[in-house]
Amino acid sequence: MAAQVKLYDTTLRDGTQGEGISLSVDDKIKIANKLDQMGVHYIEGGWPGSNPKDMNFFERAKDLSLDQAVITAFGMTRRPGLKAEEDPNLKRILESGVEAAALVGKTWDFHVTEAVQTSLEENVNMIYDSVRFLKDHDLEVIFDAEHFFDGFKNNKEYALKTILAAEDAGADCVALCDTNGGSLPSEIAAILTEVQNKLTVEIGIHCHNDGELGVANTLEAVNAGASQIQGTINGYGERCGNANLVSVIPNLQLKMGIECVSDEQLKQLTETSKYLHELANQTPPNGQPFTGKSAFAHKGGMHVSAVLKHPETYEHVIPEKIGNERRVLVSELSGQSNLLFKAKELGLSLDKSNPAVKETIEKMKDMEHKGYQYEAAEASFELLIRNGMGENHDYFRLDHFKIITHKEKEGSFTTEAVVKMIIKDQTVMTAAEGNGPVNALDHALRKAIGEFYPLVHEMYLSDYKVRVLDEAEATASTVRVLIESSDGKETWSTIGVSANIIEASWHALVDSIRYYFMKQRSRLEEVELFSSMPTEGVKNH
Amino acid sequence: MAAQVKLYDTTLRDGTQGEGISLSVDDKIKIANKLDQMGVHYIEGGWPGSNPKDMNFFERAKDLSLDQAVITAFGMTRRPGLKAEEDPNLKRILESGVEAAALVGKTWDFHVTEAVQTSLEENVNMIYDSVRFLKDHDLEVIFDAEHFFDGFKNNKEYALKTILAAEDAGADCVALCDTNGGSLPSEIAAILTEVQNKLTVEIGIHCHNDGELGVANTLEAVNAGASQIQGTINGYGERCGNANLVSVIPNLQLKMGIECVSDEQLKQLTETSKYLHELANQTPPNGQPFTGKSAFAHKGGMHVSAVLKHPETYEHVIPEKIGNERRVLVSELSGQSNLLFKAKELGLSLDKSNPAVKETIEKMKDMEHKGYQYEAAEASFELLIRNGMGENHDYFRLDHFKIITHKEKEGSFTTEAVVKMIIKDQTVMTAAEGNGPVNALDHALRKAIGEFYPLVHEMYLSDYKVRVLDEAEATASTVRVLIESSDGKETWSTIGVSANIIEASWHALVDSIRYYFMKQRSRLEEVELFSSMPTEGVKNH
Repeated sequence: MAAQVKLYDTTLRDGTQGEGISLSVDDKIKIANKLDQMGVHYIEGGWPGSNPKDMNFFERAKDLSLDQAVITAFGMTRRPGLKAEEDPNLKRILESGVEAAALVGKTWDFHVTEAVQTSLEENVNMIYDSVRFLKDHDLEVIFDAEHFFDGFKNNKEYALKTILAAEDAGADCVALCDTNGGSLPSEIAAILTEVQNKLTVEIGIHCHNDGELGVANTLEAVNAGASQIQGTINGYGERCGNANLVSVIPNLQLKMGIECVSDEQLKQLTETSKYLHELANQTPPNGQPFTGKSAFAHKGGMHVSAVLKHPETYEHVIPEKIGNERRVLVSELSGQSNLLFKAKELGLSLDKSNPAVKETIEKMKDMEHKGYQYEAAEASFELLIRNGMGENHDYFRLDHFKIITHKEKEGSFTTEAVVKMIIKDQTVMTAAEGNGPVNALDHALRKAIGEFYPLVHEMYLSDYKVRVLDEAEATASTVRVLIESSDGKETWSTIGVSANIIEASWHALVDSIRYYFMKQRSRLEEVELFSSMPTEGVKNH
Repeated sequence: MAAQVKLYDTTLRDGTQGEGISLSVDDKIKIANKLDQMGVHYIEGGWPGSNPKDMNFFERAKDLSLDQAVITAFGMTRRPGLKAEEDPNLKRILESGVEAAALVGKTWDFHVTEAVQTSLEENVNMIYDSVRFLKDHDLEVIFDAEHFFDGFKNNKEYALKTILAAEDAGADCVALCDTNGGSLPSEIAAILTEVQNKLTVEIGIHCHNDGELGVANTLEAVNAGASQIQGTINGYGERCGNANLVSVIPNLQLKMGIECVSDEQLKQLTETSKYLHELANQTPPNGQPFTGKSAFAHKGGMHVSAVLKHPETYEHVIPEKIGNERRVLVSELSGQSNLLFKAKELGLSLDKSNPAVKETIEKMKDMEHKGYQYEAAEASFELLIRNGMGENHDYFRLDHFKIITHKEKEGSFTTEAVVKMIIKDQTVMTAAEGNGPVNALDHALRKAIGEFYPLVHEMYLSDYKVRVLDEAEATASTVRVLIESSDGKETWSTIGVSANIIEASWHALVDSIRYYFMKQRSRLEEVELFSSMPTEGVKNH
């Protein structure tokens, strides 16, 4: 068993094969940064030969400054009868400009003759030539041995021949794939042990979860000698998903004593898992192992007092090690320490004894109860804390707005918004059109504010996400809107929650502008605008 | 390894410990029937000593006529210092009238001294006396050895002593529990093998899923000799849940060759899983192994043609064996073969040479280009195909609608919708309020249609999802709305795409009603409504 392993994340490629998982290039760039911060070693960004959107990702990924992660491209071995240097798919990999590539090839004889419809011999040549070609261009090459376990069970000799060809051609790692996800842990262990005796290169493992065994199969493979682990965050992937790295990592690190990431990085696991659910627009399962909301939830009484004295009585690992937390009845204790921690991070000196702390916690709990979730909306959270401490960032106030949407038969569709605002003790009323109700509201709001603060035109909304919270209530459900804004240099996120999507969007829009103005206070002052702001509602000063 | 195993279901007891899982006594009775039909051997109905609602279940369960399942009560070993016959909890078990009981007792020395705060000696007596007491009253007794694996790792000698006491007292089975859910498959196998050599009674296994290893640990235990399997349907349970029987059963039966249930019963697995999700009010995870909607879903063209010829190329088991089905996802990647497959699935005879096929593919591609994605909206897709083949399902037409949202300062927020429709050559105009613009539109639409087709009130929206497609365009982005509807028996999904969320929702709402009416055509005809439908717009006939 290896003392440490390499993490190969394929969320951006295999993960997006999952039904209902779709990520924009922007999302993929954000995720790549997040994965790097968490200590992943390889980030498979996509398949440049099959998808122009993926090529765009590789283009943009060149500007990323990553700590350690290597951006990797996925591709297939050359087509039958073609030279490697003529294969468009292999050429795309070179064009993508990556330093490492994963090449998938057939190892199950049945697939060679039935799906690819070529000879067993030619398939071995395809593997050799393709790996060699990329090695000749100085790429690090991982050979993904597709259907290896099924192939091994059906024709062991041939399956071994294919991976030996990859090794001979100079592959840096041979990753054994349980492509159909149906192998049992005992089979994985036995086969991997046998392969281990035949190869000298590093062995990787790539499991799927069709038997609900993706994590176990991965651990068994590591037990048997695999040292590169392929998987996805939250187990996203085709059919029932890939091996879930969010469970694999803490099992390896906390239970099997195998180093994957640093202790500090491990603490980011829960946040990373939630962040991905948010970007992929998936409802985080409460019961998700390690990182779920219920994973360390204890129901009152004897359990709680036992667990507070000795966590090991009812917890298999210490939740803080993975950035999760124990949930017991009154969480005021953890609420307070979180708040103080956050305030310190923002450079605010806040004392436990300050009654504002208790009030802000109450306010926060109240908001969370309504469906607010501040993890993905730090700007809104900062405004909440600063408000709680008596700072005033009400640069403008609403009198009222009205939005009218009109649809004529199959034809025209119009939306207009009318807003009346009070800014610097003056009243301004304006109207604007938009693609939809929120867009119209956004236009009208900026138009009104821009008359007093032209600064508002320097920022723009860069992302807009809607999440239905209680889906079973259908169109009457509570919705959570997350808005990301940017001024071209920095980005910040704000949140709004309501049963009405327009009201939820309104709150997020307003926070987004307030946050920008707060950050740019000095510039507001320079132009002598800040001094004339209304002081009404200022609490502590 | 046993040739056959007994299934011990604890959905009604441990399963309801899961956050958000709550079952009425009625639900529990229905589930008990379902579990019996599916071939479960023991149904743990509850804890009569702790919960009066559970006592009610046992009362009503007496009237059930089950094929083979034994209704079982759960309880704890007697309290320290009390005689078994005086222990209220044990007396309740007798009063519940069951033929079998599971008694949980401490096996980890640390828990005995820290949580129960009694002597190690007294704990052993508690186990012996309690088992003996129930055996004396002719009950079948399963001893649930709580925290056995942790106990064994900490004080092997003592852990063994506790289960030997249960065996001596006449327990029919000793179930080893991984209560905190943190053990690894290799640990479970090693410890169970060792225990196997010390005991003569049947050994059971009870795993939790805190390491995402609940299923694997259960399989490893069976490999090592356990023959009673405890778990829950869909893996419901405290924290991260119990071992998921829905995955354990097919793994054992189809892969390990161990008989659990009959082949006919195995075919009920998918339906049973969905039925439980329904009663527990849980959204079935698409990617649930074996029984999920995506478990046998195939995307790419080559995949599809291979899997149609040889299912084993991309499927680990045959979906029909567990009552699930293969799904071909219609996406940009796929073309004609997917469409023909889909049409066949819908019972439509469609010939390759039919020009409608080409037209429909063009239409589909055009819609996909706009952001439509039919893999999650099969009802909209079916309407698209049927329209392409000349069927007409325009039961109503829009003249226009208008939606007005008004917000006053921090106060009131109102939304109302006005719609004018043409139905059966008549004009109907109506208005309704709602929580938000889409909700108001939904209400007004149903109100108008309901005047002509009261059928519309039999269906309702059960889920509403919004996804922003090109997020970088922020509030001007294209949005994709997915609506799930239900009539209480079936559910179907429809889609709408537009830069305006209201227009997107409109399309999905309209499709959802059209689809239901299409499915209920015969009923529309019965009441002589169908015949008076407008025929305008019918293409091929």
